Amino acid sequence: MTSPCTSFGSDNYSGAHPAVLRALEEANSGHAAAYGGDRWTARAAEQLCDAFGAQDAFFVFNGTAANVLGLSLMLRPYEAVICPEFAHLNVDECGAPERMLGSKLLLVPTPDGKLTPELVATRLGGRSDQHRAQPRAVEIAQVTEMGTCYTLAELRRLREFCQAENLLIYMDGARLANAAAFLDCKLAELAADVDVLSFGGTKNGAVGAEAVIVMRAELAAEVPFQRKQQMQLASKMRFLAAQFISLLEDQLWLRNARHSNAMAKRLAAGISEIAGVTLRYPVQSNAVFAALDPALIEELQREWSFHVWDEDEHVVRWMTAFDTAEADVDAFVDAVRGTAAVRGTAAVRGTAAVRGTAAR
Amino acid sequence: MTSPCTSFGSDNYSGAHPAVLRALEEANSGHAAAYGGDRWTARAAEQLCDAFGAQDAFFVFNGTAANVLGLSLMLRPYEAVICPEFAHLNVDECGAPERMLGSKLLLVPTPDGKLTPELVATRLGGRSDQHRAQPRAVEIAQVTEMGTCYTLAELRRLREFCQAENLLIYMDGARLANAAAFLDCKLAELAADVDVLSFGGTKNGAVGAEAVIVMRAELAAEVPFQRKQQMQLASKMRFLAAQFISLLEDQLWLRNARHSNAMAKRLAAGISEIAGVTLRYPVQSNAVFAALDPALIEELQREWSFHVWDEDEHVVRWMTAFDTAEADVDAFVDAVRGTAAVRGTAAVRGTAAVRGTAAR
Amino acid sequence: MTSPCTSFGSDNYSGAHPAVLRALEEANSGHAAAYGGDRWTARAAEQLCDAFGAQDAFFVFNGTAANVLGLSLMLRPYEAVICPEFAHLNVDECGAPERMLGSKLLLVPTPDGKLTPELVATRLGGRSDQHRAQPRAVEIAQVTEMGTCYTLAELRRLREFCQAENLLIYMDGARLANAAAFLDCKLAELAADVDVLSFGGTKNGAVGAEAVIVMRAELAAEVPFQRKQQMQLASKMRFLAAQFISLLEDQLWLRNARHSNAMAKRLAAGISEIAGVTLRYPVQSNAVFAALDPALIEELQREWSFHVWDEDEHVVRWMTAFDTAEADVDAFVDAVRGTAAVRGTAAVRGTAAVRGTAAR
Amino acid sequence: MTSPCTSFGSDNYSGAHPAVLRALEEANSGHAAAYGGDRWTARAAEQLCDAFGAQDAFFVFNGTAANVLGLSLMLRPYEAVICPEFAHLNVDECGAPERMLGSKLLLVPTPDGKLTPELVATRLGGRSDQHRAQPRAVEIAQVTEMGTCYTLAELRRLREFCQAENLLIYMDGARLANAAAFLDCKLAELAADVDVLSFGGTKNGAVGAEAVIVMRAELAAEVPFQRKQQMQLASKMRFLAAQFISLLEDQLWLRNARHSNAMAKRLAAGISEIAGVTLRYPVQSNAVFAALDPALIEELQREWSFHVWDEDEHVVRWMTAFDTAEADVDAFVDAVRGTAAVRGTAAVRGTAAVRGTAAR
Repeated sequence: MTSPCTSFGSDNYSGAHPAVLRALEEANSGHAAAYGGDRWTARAAEQLCDAFGAQDAFFVFNGTAANVLGLSLMLRPYEAVICPEFAHLNVDECGAPERMLGSKLLLVPTPDGKLTPELVATRLGGRSDQHRAQPRAVEIAQVTEMGTCYTLAELRRLREFCQAENLLIYMDGARLANAAAFLDCKLAELAADVDVLSFGGTKNGAVGAEAVIVMRAELAAEVPFQRKQQMQLASKMRFLAAQFISLLEDQLWLRNARHSNAMAKRLAAGISEIAGVTLRYPVQSNAVFAALDPALIEELQREWSFHVWDEDEHVVRWMTAFDTAEADVDAFVDAVRGTAAVRGTAAVRGTAAVRGTAAR
Repeated sequence: MTSPCTSFGSDNYSGAHPAVLRALEEANSGHAAAYGGDRWTARAAEQLCDAFGAQDAFFVFNGTAANVLGLSLMLRPYEAVICPEFAHLNVDECGAPERMLGSKLLLVPTPDGKLTPELVATRLGGRSDQHRAQPRAVEIAQVTEMGTCYTLAELRRLREFCQAENLLIYMDGARLANAAAFLDCKLAELAADVDVLSFGGTKNGAVGAEAVIVMRAELAAEVPFQRKQQMQLASKMRFLAAQFISLLEDQLWLRNARHSNAMAKRLAAGISEIAGVTLRYPVQSNAVFAALDPALIEELQREWSFHVWDEDEHVVRWMTAFDTAEADVDAFVDAVRGTAAVRGTAAVRGTAAVRGTAAR
Repeated sequence: MTSPCTSFGSDNYSGAHPAVLRALEEANSGHAAAYGGDRWTARAAEQLCDAFGAQDAFFVFNGTAANVLGLSLMLRPYEAVICPEFAHLNVDECGAPERMLGSKLLLVPTPDGKLTPELVATRLGGRSDQHRAQPRAVEIAQVTEMGTCYTLAELRRLREFCQAENLLIYMDGARLANAAAFLDCKLAELAADVDVLSFGGTKNGAVGAEAVIVMRAELAAEVPFQRKQQMQLASKMRFLAAQFISLLEDQLWLRNARHSNAMAKRLAAGISEIAGVTLRYPVQSNAVFAALDPALIEELQREWSFHVWDEDEHVVRWMTAFDTAEADVDAFVDAVRGTAAVRGTAAVRGTAAVRGTAAR
Repeated sequence: MTSPCTSFGSDNYSGAHPAVLRALEEANSGHAAAYGGDRWTARAAEQLCDAFGAQDAFFVFNGTAANVLGLSLMLRPYEAVICPEFAHLNVDECGAPERMLGSKLLLVPTPDGKLTPELVATRLGGRSDQHRAQPRAVEIAQVTEMGTCYTLAELRRLREFCQAENLLIYMDGARLANAAAFLDCKLAELAADVDVLSFGGTKNGAVGAEAVIVMRAELAAEVPFQRKQQMQLASKMRFLAAQFISLLEDQLWLRNARHSNAMAKRLAAGISEIAGVTLRYPVQSNAVFAALDPALIEELQREWSFHVWDEDEHVVRWMTAFDTAEADVDAFVDAVRGTAAVRGTAAVRGTAAVRGTAAR
């Protein structure tokens, strides 16, 4: 493991923002009813409802649980979820959706992690055919697994299609703050065209807390039971709620997201000048995907912590966080440049450059 | 809600012990690998293995999850769990075991929340009959839902029976610390006769953390996958682990448990002198169950927070916690005495007194 | 095994009625669309809808599947089913309801296998409490596991209670024909006060076929998908449908049921004269439960096939079927009488006699 | 619907072979123990074990159930099944595997419906990564959904790869008889390289019955409980077993399969001469896939029953059955020829012809 504050491994390699820890201490005040019957929970839920224009908001422990709980409100077990092939929901949750929901995921290959009406339409065959799992929900991530963001217009267009097709939309917002920062829009605007979404605290500086935001009243009623049965009811709920209170105060969530996005842009700008390193996707959040020579990857990983995203294509993922310092980024860019120079590596073949977008 | 520190509602109405919050701050140091690949997790797991004589230890978010994860290691879906009728597992988990495991719970009425070989034997009919769910695991709680504890001899006897019957034992240890304090024994002694158990941090002063302790190596291998699929893999795991590190340091867990047990004894001793209030179960942990006149219950609940356990029998449950003060207990006893005196209430009929045991 | 036609083991020890086999041959006519798109299926479903006053009718392979499919239409996984403790659903389906539905069964001890509003009310605690599985469906069997029948008035009263309590009713009708014969009422009358029920063909002379009868249109829509996902969609559905066509023709189902009921009455009348044999429940269908000396049971089982129902209470179950002959019954009664006489056994102690009812 | 015996819709549009119905009558002889405790079940299971060299054989109602039951013996819920993208298991079972098993299917695009070691290897990433469902079983179909067959050498090669990779193999044999006929090999040879397989009776002339054949003793022990919990335990099991007894007698299964294969070859030979009709896959069983002008498809469907397999590519599937007559095939070929001639349609573009193979 690398030394503190020099990891680009993931935004959950960061610790918690100091303000979040202070909020835990402030919430540690005397006795309070357990399981959400406390004043911090009421306050945080109210603030989230205000910010999102939502009907109700609930706290869970992690992102997998937020996704499964959110989808569980929409589905009967013979109904299916249309999602991108490389969705976190499909790839990185060890089959939790299938086990908890009994439902099938219908996968769609995507160029950039984003669904469109046209892509969703490819999975709508077999409706009313009793042999086929019936599409009912569409799952999107904002930010996507590739670090890209849906524009508000794209969300609107998807929504109109889904309404016409009797499909509900769940949005995985583990990095929703980064999307809001990139798009420079309100949380309510991001949520306006979906039915249920999550708002991730953990990757934004929390100790560990996610919110499930329910935009339609008829979907909210069963959340308490679903959450409990899905083993996500916190005993001392105030300590989840307090984290969101601190993130919402003076828009700490937005400042954290803007900072990590800025660090990713700085990183992308730095490495985009280096021969042999090619950006893979537009940098629209706090993730930088790049293709580079495998020998160069190996060399860099001796000193720096980050993930190889695609072994075959030699693509790595560099994540920034709320606590990534400019100096960290600059030192890392220097390291990439220095290593590349020594090796004189040529650009990896077959990689579509997207430098222009990355520099925005 | 009553004012701070005067609740006898539950031990999770308490906040966190200050040392636990300090441990979170100490763990908030730079970047660390997520999902348990950090040094705090390694250290806490090692300390727990040492304390319990265990093969491995894993962290989850809450008690329901610890129970379900622990049992999931033992069961195929057609296999069943024998447990007390009023087990938390059966009554208070909203059907999480059935949904997650697909398994049936086979219920046994018990006088005091404890299973015996004789009671377990009543549910062993139908083995090898394909129409019947097949008993495979026995679930016990230490402390039980009635606040009682199994003696080490009782555990040993149950174990011998279960081994002879090819049954595994899971022990719900949400209040295991209180049992260790009451029995004045080591954690390893409590764990010696079970296969998997939980060790509750939350009700012992943690912010929110439970450990699943696996005593047999062959059951531990699948925990990482089961935990993830059951949506219990913490992103920033170090913040769960750090809570246990602080509880284990200088046996804070034991001091917390001894204190709350002592407060329960003090409460029981105080109210046992009051006419019209009858202890319901031996006080062997931090719970006091008492039967009293329903009008008296109603009167007391105006000022004090606690649960009515059995509406029909007019039984209430008073829980103490690590932060319950002697003055709180004394003030509450005075309140009971005063209210009872005004009413001159006679003892509730049909209640077996257990004062002698409660005074130990 | 005993020789042909002398078993009192169960009504599914019988083979098929010859008319049912003829119906299979008649349906074996050329090609027909699979999975229910054939004319036999349409005709049988229509006939069943007419007979029951139902919205729709569907065929499945066995009784467990009918029960689970029927209940699946009513439940979310955190919702629970209230049923008698000794319901087939609870005891004899190897946990299929829990695994398929994820739902908890809430058990009610009953004196005679029948639920009443008062008994159901005992399991309605904890509604709106997120820790508790939420009662949503009530499961009854007509005929019950004890061979007793609900009167139409009892069904009406249960229905009114359930409607007031927002509970749906599922009726396990594996032996519904026997209930209709005993009560001398129409199928539509039996179904009028429930939401979904099954109509058993197998124990009435079919090769193997059960119908799920849906009384409310809003519950019927998802049956095709639930049935397929529950692995109950027959490939050559016509061969299930044809069995019902033959049973419905000239009310063969009723004649079969009347006959088996009559044989049970004859048996009960015969053995009720024998000292040391005590009827256990009113004989209201094709089942006779009796308590007798265990040595006598052992002796009889050397020559005759039947089940011991309760080992502790020495209760046996004798079932008659559509093909039980009067001579079989008489020979069996003679055997009981002869064996008892040799032994001179006194009546088993502690058994409440119900001879009066049995003689009706 | 077309008139009897002129359908090419599916092999389950056929009725039952007369010998199968005769076997039902022969089994309809007196009383017999239910749930498989009868002599027909014992005999059929023994015959199947002999034919397959298997440890045990069990009967279920349909193909979906056989697949799910077979896989359930191999999997923990966090373990996954690698299967072809267009496997019946994935496409046509309404999510039954996910709901029953909780397991994820890992999909592999295939050119011809067949898995190879190389294709399986593409889904083996992420082993030991707790975020990923863990590959444990490989599901293949013999015959595949495209009507193709694995050679014995291909099965052997796949087996060696899977053993080296600690993967078990389940083979969907809904049309296994057709594969045995095509490959001209014994059933035991087909089964030698898998762990569990199904042997389909329904599409081979049965009324409705499938066998689950277990090649390894350690996997067989839990079948009775899994089958019951999966709602596949037949009440009067003898009527499932008897169907297999009749199919096994004098190798009726093989004669049926040879005939339907021959009819498919005749059909393929006939239409392969017609301009504008192109065979899509090698004809290795009783299925003929062909691409043709959509207007021609529409015209033909007015008189003949068959399925469009791929709307976009204008591919249809023509199935033959045990009761397809030469005259039916010839009449259909004439119809295709006549319709095509009138239209003068050119071959559909972009379709790889495989006529040589089809003529084998």
